[in-house]
Amino acid sequence: MSEYVHGYSGRESERLSDQASTLAGLLHHDTSYPAGTRVLEAGCGVGAQTAILAKGSPGARIVSMDISQGSLDQARQRVEKEGISDVQFQRADIFQLPFREDCFDHIFLCFVLEHLSDPTLALQELKKILRPGGTLTVIEGDHGSCYFHPETPEALACWRSINLVQAEMGGNSHIGRELYPMLCRAGFREVTVSPRMVYSDASRPEMRTGFVENTIIAMVEGVKTQALQMGLVESDAWIKGIEDLHATAGPDGSFCYTFFKAVGVK
Amino acid sequence: MSEYVHGYSGRESERLSDQASTLAGLLHHDTSYPAGTRVLEAGCGVGAQTAILAKGSPGARIVSMDISQGSLDQARQRVEKEGISDVQFQRADIFQLPFREDCFDHIFLCFVLEHLSDPTLALQELKKILRPGGTLTVIEGDHGSCYFHPETPEALACWRSINLVQAEMGGNSHIGRELYPMLCRAGFREVTVSPRMVYSDASRPEMRTGFVENTIIAMVEGVKTQALQMGLVESDAWIKGIEDLHATAGPDGSFCYTFFKAVGVK
Repeated sequence: MSEYVHGYSGRESERLSDQASTLAGLLHHDTSYPAGTRVLEAGCGVGAQTAILAKGSPGARIVSMDISQGSLDQARQRVEKEGISDVQFQRADIFQLPFREDCFDHIFLCFVLEHLSDPTLALQELKKILRPGGTLTVIEGDHGSCYFHPETPEALACWRSINLVQAEMGGNSHIGRELYPMLCRAGFREVTVSPRMVYSDASRPEMRTGFVENTIIAMVEGVKTQALQMGLVESDAWIKGIEDLHATAGPDGSFCYTFFKAVGVK
Repeated sequence: MSEYVHGYSGRESERLSDQASTLAGLLHHDTSYPAGTRVLEAGCGVGAQTAILAKGSPGARIVSMDISQGSLDQARQRVEKEGISDVQFQRADIFQLPFREDCFDHIFLCFVLEHLSDPTLALQELKKILRPGGTLTVIEGDHGSCYFHPETPEALACWRSINLVQAEMGGNSHIGRELYPMLCRAGFREVTVSPRMVYSDASRPEMRTGFVENTIIAMVEGVKTQALQMGLVESDAWIKGIEDLHATAGPDGSFCYTFFKAVGVK
C-alpha cells in the first residue's frame, strides 16, 4: 500500500475531507439507495465519502471495505464523529473479494479505479458479488480535463507531475473519459455516464478555496518529493509553478476540472 | 477577411449550421430578450445563430452585423428560409461601430472574440453602444478543454493543429477560460460565467454525429491545407490522425469539449 499516489499522511486525510465536502453536492446528490438494501462501498479509504453516502441513503445496510486497515480505522472514527453508527467496515482486497456471489444490491466506488493496475478486472470481480438487476456506481476524475488561466509552463509542469507520478505507480489519471467503454467491457448494461464539471473564477470564492487551493494545489504539493526525485520538475520551477497555480485561484484566474459519474446495471 | 481560421467555404457554412443546431439547447436555451428591446448580434457570420436568437426572443428588434458582406448575404438568406423577416442586417467593423452610444439594450456575441487580435478592446467598444444596465452575452469555446478516448499521438497532432493555425492568425483558441477576467477588465459588472460541457460516448448517437463528426472533425479537416503547409503534421500522420479522431465517435470512444457563456452588465 506504499503505492497509493497520494500517500497516507494527516494532511492528505484533511485534503480528502475538504474535497469531499466541497464536491458533495456535485458528485453525490443523485446517489440514494433505498432503506434495507445491501450496499458495498468498495475502496472507502479514510471514509471521505462514507458519511455522505450513509446520510444520502438512510436505512441502507452499507458495508465499506478497503485494503488498508489504517484507513479503515480512520474511516470508522470519522463516521462515528458524524453520528453514524450503522456502517460496517471490513478489510478486503478488491481483486479477492470475501463476499458471496450476488450478495449486494448496489456497489459504489469513488476515486478507486484510477489507482488500480487492472480496473476492468476489478469491475468484473465486483460484478460477481452484485445481484442481477443491481447497480454499480463509479465516480472518477480525469486529470486531462484540467486547464486553467493564467497558464504558465511551470504551473503546467507541476500539474502534469501528478499524472506522471501516478502513471509510474501503475494508475490511470485519465480514467474518467474511459468509464463508459470500461463498464461496457466489464459486462454492465444500461451504462450512463454524466460529467460533473467544477469551474472556479473570482466570483466563486467557495470553489477557489475549497477546490483549487485545498484540493487541487494540496494534491499537487503532495507529490513534490516524488516529482523532484523523478526529475520531473526542477526545485526552482516547482516553487514558481505552485505560486502560479495559486494565481489561478486569484482575482484574474480561472480553473476547470471534470469528474465523471458512471452507473451500470448487472 | 482571408484571415478567418475556418474560411468561407460551402462545407464550412454547413458545418456551422450543424454545430448550431446540435448545440442550440445547450448554449442558447437561457438567452431570451423581451419584445421591443434593441439587440445587437455582433459578428453574426453566416447567421448560424441568428435564427436561434430571433426565435428565442420574439418581438425583439435584432440588428445582426458582420464585417463580411458575403457572410451577411448568406445570413439573410438563411434567416428568411426559416420564415424570420424582422432581423436587420448591417455590415460593420467591431472596432469601428457605426452606432450611437447607449443605443442597444442587449448585445450578443457567439464565437467571435476567439478570432480577434484584441478581444478586450472589442468588448470596450461594444460597451459604449450598450445602454447603462444593459447586458452583454458572450459564448466562446476553449480548445484546451478538449480531450478524447482513445487518445493517439496522431489524433492529438491533428487536433492541436487547429490551435496552432488559429494562433498564427492572431486568434486565441483558449479564450473560454478567460472570459470572466476579460469581461471584468472591459468594465462589465455582475459578470457570471457558466461552462457548457459537451460529452459524447456510444450511448449518445446525436452527439457522436452532430458534434464529434460534423462539427469537430469537420473543423479539423478544414485546416488540413494550412496544417500541412505549416509543417505541423506530416501527410501520413494526418490521415491516421483523422481516422483516430473518428474512433473517438465509435463504440469504444468518448469525446469532451466545453463552451463558456458569460453575461455582464454595463
